[in-house]
Amino acid sequence: MSDRIGFIGLGLMGKPMAQNLLKKGFSLTVTSRSRPPVDILVQAGATAALSPADVARHSDVIITMVPDSPDVRAVLEGPDGVFGAIGHGSVIVDMSTIAPAVSRDLAAKAAARGVQMLDAPVSGGEIGAINASLSIMVGGDADALERVRPVLNAMGNPERVVHIGPAGSGQVCKACNQVCIGGALASVSEAFAMARKAGIDPAKVREALLGGFAYSRALEVHGERILKGNYVPGFKTKLYHKDLGIVMQTVHELAVSAPVAALVQQYVSAMMAAGRGEDDYSALATVVFDAAGLDQ
Amino acid sequence: MSDRIGFIGLGLMGKPMAQNLLKKGFSLTVTSRSRPPVDILVQAGATAALSPADVARHSDVIITMVPDSPDVRAVLEGPDGVFGAIGHGSVIVDMSTIAPAVSRDLAAKAAARGVQMLDAPVSGGEIGAINASLSIMVGGDADALERVRPVLNAMGNPERVVHIGPAGSGQVCKACNQVCIGGALASVSEAFAMARKAGIDPAKVREALLGGFAYSRALEVHGERILKGNYVPGFKTKLYHKDLGIVMQTVHELAVSAPVAALVQQYVSAMMAAGRGEDDYSALATVVFDAAGLDQ
Repeated sequence: MSDRIGFIGLGLMGKPMAQNLLKKGFSLTVTSRSRPPVDILVQAGATAALSPADVARHSDVIITMVPDSPDVRAVLEGPDGVFGAIGHGSVIVDMSTIAPAVSRDLAAKAAARGVQMLDAPVSGGEIGAINASLSIMVGGDADALERVRPVLNAMGNPERVVHIGPAGSGQVCKACNQVCIGGALASVSEAFAMARKAGIDPAKVREALLGGFAYSRALEVHGERILKGNYVPGFKTKLYHKDLGIVMQTVHELAVSAPVAALVQQYVSAMMAAGRGEDDYSALATVVFDAAGLDQ
Repeated sequence: MSDRIGFIGLGLMGKPMAQNLLKKGFSLTVTSRSRPPVDILVQAGATAALSPADVARHSDVIITMVPDSPDVRAVLEGPDGVFGAIGHGSVIVDMSTIAPAVSRDLAAKAAARGVQMLDAPVSGGEIGAINASLSIMVGGDADALERVRPVLNAMGNPERVVHIGPAGSGQVCKACNQVCIGGALASVSEAFAMARKAGIDPAKVREALLGGFAYSRALEVHGERILKGNYVPGFKTKLYHKDLGIVMQTVHELAVSAPVAALVQQYVSAMMAAGRGEDDYSALATVVFDAAGLDQ
């Protein structure tokens, strides 16, 4: 690879993703809000930059992996941001999960600077980031994706690096992902509540259902967490809460009626109200159990 | 096997299940409301009975596979019903999907006659019945299950013949199954509607999501049906509508709040109102698409 890679945002997801890029031999310049993960990456061979602008000056492909829409705006458009320093012909790959409308806006602003921008949110959680087995949903120009595909392949499952459509469509796909997971997780939770209140072991229900049409990863993975009451994240409720805000904003803008997604959002708001923001989002079951008068 | 098997109800599911029993060498006496499937089974080696009572007189294990609670009551308690003729020490295996409360009531009435009764509803659809790959969720006495396990193994996947708990709990498990499928199917439908209205090919969304936490059999199997608009059953909407009545009756009796299941029921009521009772239940997507102003 002749492309020099920049990486902005070394959090729970970003750090292992950047580490995988180093392992695959990419030249890497990094920055992050907190210093410790920067030091870890530098010890592994990365170069520390002073700011997002500084990353942009030393990189041809700039990856951003930050929590929310305002964070991406700050990193790109803010003081010492990427837009103030990026070179013509570079590519920005935003792998954060943000609002599709913001992705489209930023892609247009990048294009005005002669820069291609992809939205490329991921699915697979911290484990997927560590194991380089993420699914990556890409919106933007197909030729920009082909240019950075080796970089994405180093962080995800190459068979699951999928070009969805134009700018913003990777984010729409990620919103779809969160809707599908939520509907499955909420219905597994309701099913377990029904079983428990009927005096039946939900572990037996899970076992019986895993082989049939009711199978979902939510039943298998989150179902096991629920049975054990193990809500160590994984994927934090407060981030799922943020993502559902994006989902409901998006379906509102599109004038799509999505009542199951809306209900999932209400469940997750109840989780936040119950102080479960730092727990794994499979703790959704706890609010369903509470509502049924069941203990945890 | 020394047990003589009786089979009552040779419909879409019952006929291939009975055929599998014959193939595995069981001695079989059958009856059904309509004559053609009885003739087919007789040509394959079964004996035709005149009534459920007549089946009971010639069988040690009596399997019932009929549409709904009143049908099971009629077959067991009605004139020329099983209860009027069944011998002490026999076992009734009701594989219909009915209300758990009715299963418990009938099991108690059977026990008063010295007869064990299992509720053993199935999942896996017509294909699973044909291929003898059904999941079977069993409620009732464990020793009765062990006695009839070779019979159930001949119709289902032996690894998915699961003892859930006492009488009625097989039906509760089946209700859980229908809740989980419904939540997954409805959220896949809403996700596809969001994608379509955003101008994105839902086939791309399905492809990207299949490898991650959003995976469900609903996304894979029903999602493909939805993409093709192929709603040839499969599993008929009118039967899913019936099952959701059982689900909501059960959560009501248990005082469990299950709003996602309730929403799925409302979607399926809209399908019935739209005249889709004979279509596969994956046509749930059509009412979601209608509500979003999308064509089919």
